[in-house]
Amino acid sequence: MNRSRRKGELIVLSGPSGVGKSTVISELMGSRGNLYFSVSFTTRAPRVGEADGVNYNFVDRAEFERMIAAGELLEYAEYVGNYYGTSLKLIQDKIEEGIDVLLDIEVQGAAKVRARCPEAVLIFIIPPSFEELSRRLHSRATDPEDVIQGRLQKAHDEYREIVTYDYLVVNDTVSNAAAEIVSILTAESCRAKKRINMIEGI
Amino acid sequence: MNRSRRKGELIVLSGPSGVGKSTVISELMGSRGNLYFSVSFTTRAPRVGEADGVNYNFVDRAEFERMIAAGELLEYAEYVGNYYGTSLKLIQDKIEEGIDVLLDIEVQGAAKVRARCPEAVLIFIIPPSFEELSRRLHSRATDPEDVIQGRLQKAHDEYREIVTYDYLVVNDTVSNAAAEIVSILTAESCRAKKRINMIEGI
Repeated sequence: MNRSRRKGELIVLSGPSGVGKSTVISELMGSRGNLYFSVSFTTRAPRVGEADGVNYNFVDRAEFERMIAAGELLEYAEYVGNYYGTSLKLIQDKIEEGIDVLLDIEVQGAAKVRARCPEAVLIFIIPPSFEELSRRLHSRATDPEDVIQGRLQKAHDEYREIVTYDYLVVNDTVSNAAAEIVSILTAESCRAKKRINMIEGI
Repeated sequence: MNRSRRKGELIVLSGPSGVGKSTVISELMGSRGNLYFSVSFTTRAPRVGEADGVNYNFVDRAEFERMIAAGELLEYAEYVGNYYGTSLKLIQDKIEEGIDVLLDIEVQGAAKVRARCPEAVLIFIIPPSFEELSRRLHSRATDPEDVIQGRLQKAHDEYREIVTYDYLVVNDTVSNAAAEIVSILTAESCRAKKRINMIEGI
């Protein structure tokens, strides 16, 4: 078997604001090699502790709209008044190199990725309960109450889209959620339709 | 989330004679709870070291043909002159109890299971190379040369059916193969379409 011919997987992670995606992604990046996190571009203001080029690439609306016009984005969406988008070129290069690429994008963006890349693996992360999501959003204490209520309503609406995802992971603990995602990545690399191309003489 | 409502998975393992399925299955049964191995019925003679009710339920042709006529089999097939088949009732009970059921059956039987249970998870196990398979069959020293050649030809023919399986696992080492199958089982339990029924309020 020639493992070098393997292409990387494109993995989309979605989930409501406050579910703990960033923490799960940090755990994944620390525990699994051969994984690249695609930092999204956004026009929203950085939160306390967020760094440009790490959590997001922070740009203004004029620059974001230039990127849209230039066709530089795999997908983009507007969400609670701000743009979020994903650069195309870097992702393509990593996948060709055999590196798995992780995207953290919301449901509108995920649907666009699925339409352009049907082989992408879509994972939705939920909290153990809605009450727990509300508690986490309030304990974060970075958003005013009306923004938190907007995020909860948005989460409620997004739950209807879960059926369009391949996998559903419950973030009860970060290590459980990360372990399930690692299993999903391993299983996807075992898909017969992908792996058969690596077997000589078939 | 109410995990008690989860049904078990039906997992089919196929692969050429000599690939080491029995050893991989022993490793799986030892490392993972909530997993039941469905012992097949067969009319072939026991090999050295094989026990009735453990490796197979060994029956004669008259008894096997009675089971066929009585509708007691999920699937059965004739392979290298012997019948192999799977009992239906016990599998159904285990799956309802939320226990994953593992079947070791060849490609004809797997196709019949897929037709009757579209949600079954089909895994094909291959050796690292065809030369390695030949070496393993000869080192086993339980079959005469013409039977070994028949098994190798059969393996060659079966490889064409790999595309009809969900997953392809390479048995380079038993622990690698078992770990990949454990990841596949975990990933399958995370499938959004299955798991969404366990989330309250969706």
